[in-house]
Amino acid sequence: MAEISSCPPLTRESVVAARQLILPLLPQQARFASRDPSELGEKWQGRKPAAPKLRLWFKCENFQRGGAFKARGAFHALERLKMEPGWAENGGREKGVATHSSGNHAQALALAAKENGIPAHIVMPSVTTPYKVNATKGFGANVIFSTLTDRLAVAERVVAETGARMIPPYDHPDIILGQGTMGLELQEQIEHLDAIMAPCSGGGMLSGVALSCEGTGIKVFGAEPEFEGADDAKRGMEQGKRITNVNSMSIADGLRSYLGVHPWSVLYERKLVQGMYAVSEEEIKAAMKLVLERMKLVIEPSAAVPLAVEAGDAGWDLGLILSGGNIAVDGLAKLFAE
Amino acid sequence: MAEISSCPPLTRESVVAARQLILPLLPQQARFASRDPSELGEKWQGRKPAAPKLRLWFKCENFQRGGAFKARGAFHALERLKMEPGWAENGGREKGVATHSSGNHAQALALAAKENGIPAHIVMPSVTTPYKVNATKGFGANVIFSTLTDRLAVAERVVAETGARMIPPYDHPDIILGQGTMGLELQEQIEHLDAIMAPCSGGGMLSGVALSCEGTGIKVFGAEPEFEGADDAKRGMEQGKRITNVNSMSIADGLRSYLGVHPWSVLYERKLVQGMYAVSEEEIKAAMKLVLERMKLVIEPSAAVPLAVEAGDAGWDLGLILSGGNIAVDGLAKLFAE
Repeated sequence: MAEISSCPPLTRESVVAARQLILPLLPQQARFASRDPSELGEKWQGRKPAAPKLRLWFKCENFQRGGAFKARGAFHALERLKMEPGWAENGGREKGVATHSSGNHAQALALAAKENGIPAHIVMPSVTTPYKVNATKGFGANVIFSTLTDRLAVAERVVAETGARMIPPYDHPDIILGQGTMGLELQEQIEHLDAIMAPCSGGGMLSGVALSCEGTGIKVFGAEPEFEGADDAKRGMEQGKRITNVNSMSIADGLRSYLGVHPWSVLYERKLVQGMYAVSEEEIKAAMKLVLERMKLVIEPSAAVPLAVEAGDAGWDLGLILSGGNIAVDGLAKLFAE
Repeated sequence: MAEISSCPPLTRESVVAARQLILPLLPQQARFASRDPSELGEKWQGRKPAAPKLRLWFKCENFQRGGAFKARGAFHALERLKMEPGWAENGGREKGVATHSSGNHAQALALAAKENGIPAHIVMPSVTTPYKVNATKGFGANVIFSTLTDRLAVAERVVAETGARMIPPYDHPDIILGQGTMGLELQEQIEHLDAIMAPCSGGGMLSGVALSCEGTGIKVFGAEPEFEGADDAKRGMEQGKRITNVNSMSIADGLRSYLGVHPWSVLYERKLVQGMYAVSEEEIKAAMKLVLERMKLVIEPSAAVPLAVEAGDAGWDLGLILSGGNIAVDGLAKLFAE
């Protein structure tokens, strides 16, 4: 990954530059749906009498390459790496990239590396579901297994041995700026957007989206699971101190991390997020059921979290990020078994 | 329903007229996906070496109003009814419409009736899943329960008592022409279409699509489940005699009926279908899994049947009809439970 000091500043302009870099690789997803909340059934009908004209707009990152928004950050990070003076000359292409991830970042980086013809070394805990391991291997990555606790150590060893460049999942400007590009697209796709609600875990996406909205008047909100303390960003902001210890097994398995240093700076210190919400496991499942049954879209539990929050003022055009759709049918079956 | 003698002839021109009638009510679904079969994984990769350049185009009728293509026929039938001399004057609006259906036609007719402000009486077997009963009631229909065997008798009694007009699910020109509109849309949405593969049950959709392709050079194929003889259309065409006795419990629950008189005439006697294929239950499940996991679209088992067929020549642009997405999450869970 590029040295932080050489990264562009975390501004809306930098998100615009990031988008120019990745647009040829990740064309704008034309698909997004406008829904009257009442079409989503009684959950919204009954509980939102004060907001009869709230319009919901869904950014379908489940249709993104690799099945989730993570492709944005991964492709952007690789483009930036290729621009780094000396990287190619010093054998950067042959050494490739590395990360540790059991989730969508693993697949996204594997895909981006494959498209660039460079090797990817992905450290995954051996308990990772076969669906995700196979998808990552399917993109040609070299998968190295670790225990749940020694992931970082194994990844660092891999980097030492191979010379591969580490591409972290969220706490880096290149990743944040890449994820922020979805915010720009929503602003283009919806004529008058009042607010965006995005899921929050490490905060790469939420801080990127917040940067994309800086100075536009569009409000930005974050949504987290509350289960076993996964709502660390919300709690940390209430306490005025970043929380760095979360151990949650929420069904929203993409949202179990805690907020990174750079996202904290953007969201809290620069006050670019207007509010944080936490939702229960049952609310997440109910929102996921709505999207599957009414919208006919496959999303993973993490993607349902913004819809699970019931917020928004009457008359608003509210953008909701459906962050990804990487769930296997047997995972779906387990989640909704009676 | 209009008298057959007063219906337009079963021609491509009549499908074009049907489309003009319903386009304001059912705007063209902009969403369709182009996929390289290799993106759909090893099932297609491994078994289609001879067709490396087959392009698959999916007509996403799961995004159609009411969750399935059936809205086309139902809305068209109601528009035609409203055009019938004397219908409104004789209290047609107050008497409403009726049908017997446990499936997507029930929801589609309920929705079309609701939009027109007229009553709908829907006879459903009492074993129908709560998901479908609730969806039909959700559109304001009067649901009357029957046993599995006395559906038609109960529906006829309802018609006698209420004066409602019967709207059959498939074996009527107004329904066939309505369903055929999807074929016209595919022809507009894909520049050079070589063939369309559609599911076949009563044959309303397949014969409508065949009419929409008449004289265009586009080949039309039908796909059925083979389980317990649900491939009656294929077998009937091989024997040269329509089969009128099918009792299959295929997981493709929308494809358990047998071919109607009008569809038989279009497909077999006029030779407007170029081939019929039958697939196993396991092939249907495998295709459904591909669509859920790779394309992130929720479809019902019946909609997976055309993809389950592995046919198509190299270089073809092949349109596949994803006929509907009406399946509850607990139904999904049961289907894919280990």
